[in-house]
Amino acid sequence: MRQAGRYLPEYRKLRGDRDILEAARDPDLVVEVTLQPLRRMELDAAILFSDIMVPLHATGTEVRVEAGVGPIVGGPFRSAADVSRLRPLEPEADVPFVLESIRLLRKDLTVPLIGFAGAPFTLASYLIEGRPSRTHDRTKAMMFDPSSPWFALADALADLSASYLRAQVDAGVEALQVFDSWAGALSRADYERYVRPSMTRLFDSIADLDVPVIHFGVGTGEFLPEMRHDAVDVVGVDWRLPLDEALSRLVEGVGDGVGIQGNLDPAACLAPWPVVEEKARAVLSAADNKDGHVFNLGHGVLPETDPATLERLVDLVHAETAR
Amino acid sequence: MRQAGRYLPEYRKLRGDRDILEAARDPDLVVEVTLQPLRRMELDAAILFSDIMVPLHATGTEVRVEAGVGPIVGGPFRSAADVSRLRPLEPEADVPFVLESIRLLRKDLTVPLIGFAGAPFTLASYLIEGRPSRTHDRTKAMMFDPSSPWFALADALADLSASYLRAQVDAGVEALQVFDSWAGALSRADYERYVRPSMTRLFDSIADLDVPVIHFGVGTGEFLPEMRHDAVDVVGVDWRLPLDEALSRLVEGVGDGVGIQGNLDPAACLAPWPVVEEKARAVLSAADNKDGHVFNLGHGVLPETDPATLERLVDLVHAETAR
Repeated sequence: MRQAGRYLPEYRKLRGDRDILEAARDPDLVVEVTLQPLRRMELDAAILFSDIMVPLHATGTEVRVEAGVGPIVGGPFRSAADVSRLRPLEPEADVPFVLESIRLLRKDLTVPLIGFAGAPFTLASYLIEGRPSRTHDRTKAMMFDPSSPWFALADALADLSASYLRAQVDAGVEALQVFDSWAGALSRADYERYVRPSMTRLFDSIADLDVPVIHFGVGTGEFLPEMRHDAVDVVGVDWRLPLDEALSRLVEGVGDGVGIQGNLDPAACLAPWPVVEEKARAVLSAADNKDGHVFNLGHGVLPETDPATLERLVDLVHAETAR
Repeated sequence: MRQAGRYLPEYRKLRGDRDILEAARDPDLVVEVTLQPLRRMELDAAILFSDIMVPLHATGTEVRVEAGVGPIVGGPFRSAADVSRLRPLEPEADVPFVLESIRLLRKDLTVPLIGFAGAPFTLASYLIEGRPSRTHDRTKAMMFDPSSPWFALADALADLSASYLRAQVDAGVEALQVFDSWAGALSRADYERYVRPSMTRLFDSIADLDVPVIHFGVGTGEFLPEMRHDAVDVVGVDWRLPLDEALSRLVEGVGDGVGIQGNLDPAACLAPWPVVEEKARAVLSAADNKDGHVFNLGHGVLPETDPATLERLVDLVHAETAR
């Protein structure tokens, strides 16, 4: 569950109207906001308050995150010249505020801290479209054009995210999540051909890190097995697919040995409690108390969610899984 | 394939900056725009130029379609009082321009004319959110709230669409398509519980009409069998799921006897021709020249599509399926 966010009044008050990319540069704020959900709920882990655009912003990409819209990129990427504007991340120089936040958090935390980064397709979509897109037309057009710099872009983003993830682990995070929020716009064949190579590159480069890795997607039910990699311990599944079916797909032909994360519809948390409870129990029941199930929402907490609902949800999941 | 649209320069020229809901009220324009794609391409059918919001607009809902955005509804629906603002369609009084357009078109056309309407979930989402939404939060919140007027709203919209479809058939359309563009945001369980009843109501009320009915969805691969109904002849499938797998799911447990429509990714048509060709052949190959396959894009033609690509695509499909 992306815990820190706009659904918490104490978060909105603290952040004010600062861009999240600016807020993420302030370790005191990052620490406080990361801890806020833990003060309300008995969560099993903390997730670093940050944004997947942080390493791009920190290496010179002109980007801001507009409230209620999402990332807006100045000078969207279209050509090889645009791709060459990307440079490798030098963590200590580019994102010292992230590393400092992690070090500070590790002093306070009694639960594991999860760090994260964006996956190449999702990052590329923001860079190419220049803003959030429902259809990702321009991204796909570049992907489908053999003369385009698609693979160079995807590889550069894989390297950026890999460096960023490694630096977070070096600073102290104890689990990693790779967010590919928009890969679900693709067919299995296109994912395999245009996206999986850069995912393999990313996961290969962090395979030596001794922390669990979660590969998160939304609407990726048709290519869950393709989201696996030796370095991936857990695959995220959204609410479109029941977890028992997701598990069958994940193990078919590739064997067991992978956990599953999900998959309550975030919109379910807007419902009256008996509906939330019924839906949460359905998730737990489909997962059948299996080892390696990480209960989670299928996507981020919606801003209009009542924190009290999340508090009850956490208690319910703990009560049910302790049995 | 939603044929009439912004990808055609002759369409953009003719429509100018008029709202599509206004343009749809002008039978001369509707006839011309419906015919435009047929002058360029040897299409097997024509689809009436219109919009799924037409019957709502015509019965008093305050709505406009903003270019590049979509439907914007004044006074979004939240309460039972809002739902009571809907009234039944009186086709001859409310949408005479649609019926007149159909009658005029039938004189000119040598291919079948397809009429269409929106499905309750998709229409409800526009009414409740007030604008296009990626997550449909408010719609789901109403759906999940047992004290809300969700089922009354969905039933009223089913009745509106059923009347509208019947009137189109009476005026001369020879096939129908029901668009549920956003149902793919739902899990199978939620579709079954909150949406299928109104779909059943809609299809039950048009079951006596002697024309083929296509049930169109995007991202609905997890509940294709639930989209079937005795009145549904063809189920639409988007590019996320190969057609052979879609067919297996459609017949599993419910038997054969349904056609399939799809499923080229509209973004594929932005690619260089060899890529379009490869992807179109993959669609045809997955459908295996099966009777009852309607070749189509998985969603509407993107505005930036080169019409020449679509012309070649139509020729390719004809050449391949004539074999």
